[in-house]
Amino acid sequence: VAPLLPSADLPSGCTVVELTVRGDERGSLVALEGGRDVPFEIARAYYIFGTQAGVARGFHAHRRTVQMAVVVRGSCRMLLEDGERRTWVTLDRPDRAIVIGAMVWHEMHDFSDDCVMLVLADDHYDESDYIRDHATFVRLIEGGNA
Amino acid sequence: VAPLLPSADLPSGCTVVELTVRGDERGSLVALEGGRDVPFEIARAYYIFGTQAGVARGFHAHRRTVQMAVVVRGSCRMLLEDGERRTWVTLDRPDRAIVIGAMVWHEMHDFSDDCVMLVLADDHYDESDYIRDHATFVRLIEGGNA
Repeated sequence: VAPLLPSADLPSGCTVVELTVRGDERGSLVALEGGRDVPFEIARAYYIFGTQAGVARGFHAHRRTVQMAVVVRGSCRMLLEDGERRTWVTLDRPDRAIVIGAMVWHEMHDFSDDCVMLVLADDHYDESDYIRDHATFVRLIEGGNA
Repeated sequence: VAPLLPSADLPSGCTVVELTVRGDERGSLVALEGGRDVPFEIARAYYIFGTQAGVARGFHAHRRTVQMAVVVRGSCRMLLEDGERRTWVTLDRPDRAIVIGAMVWHEMHDFSDDCVMLVLADDHYDESDYIRDHATFVRLIEGGNA
């Protein structure tokens, strides 16, 4: 499996993780052990499905929460942006995850009809952790770099 | 959503959990917060996919590990057995999970081609936690009831 992108080309705090597939004649299994395959303890899991053609999701950054996303069925494209780098990645393999660092703006586009995206997060849901306005995100990033 | 089965009909330690779908015009999302929607802290997540027609999986019980399984795409049937009850459940909804208690023999059958099963576990992988021989399982269960 060729790397999706060198992690150096990804926004700060983002990495591609190649996952081990335990496959045999019965099918395939990918295990994600918190603190081992996943670079944090898993506080929350969620999955996105039933996405409609032409619909995009995300459009936010997290102040603190770190996540790992893997498209377990189908495909989508993700835009990741940290204020310096703005990178598109295609997620279309159940054996390849992307870690999304804190303070990374992300958008998901071009969902296939059958797309199921699994996301693991290092913290519970907290609306105050979300930055949903892009101008605010840019201002906070630039303030941090000043 | 009608209950899959009254939990009273399920083996000891097993329950059906109806999950809240956060759906809108963008699609659907189900969140599983460790210790809240999931009746334990999440140590490990794994997913099974690429199952072939006619293939069955599982055929074990865990001495201690408790798990929650949800079929996020497609369908399969699961056999659950605690020595007293032997119950089949159909898993075919992304908004309905089953908690599999410790010391419950389980088998998965009749996977659809597109089946993706997500499982969350309360502990890391440990081969010594598995009972893979049915006669041993029955002996341990009967010993426990004696």
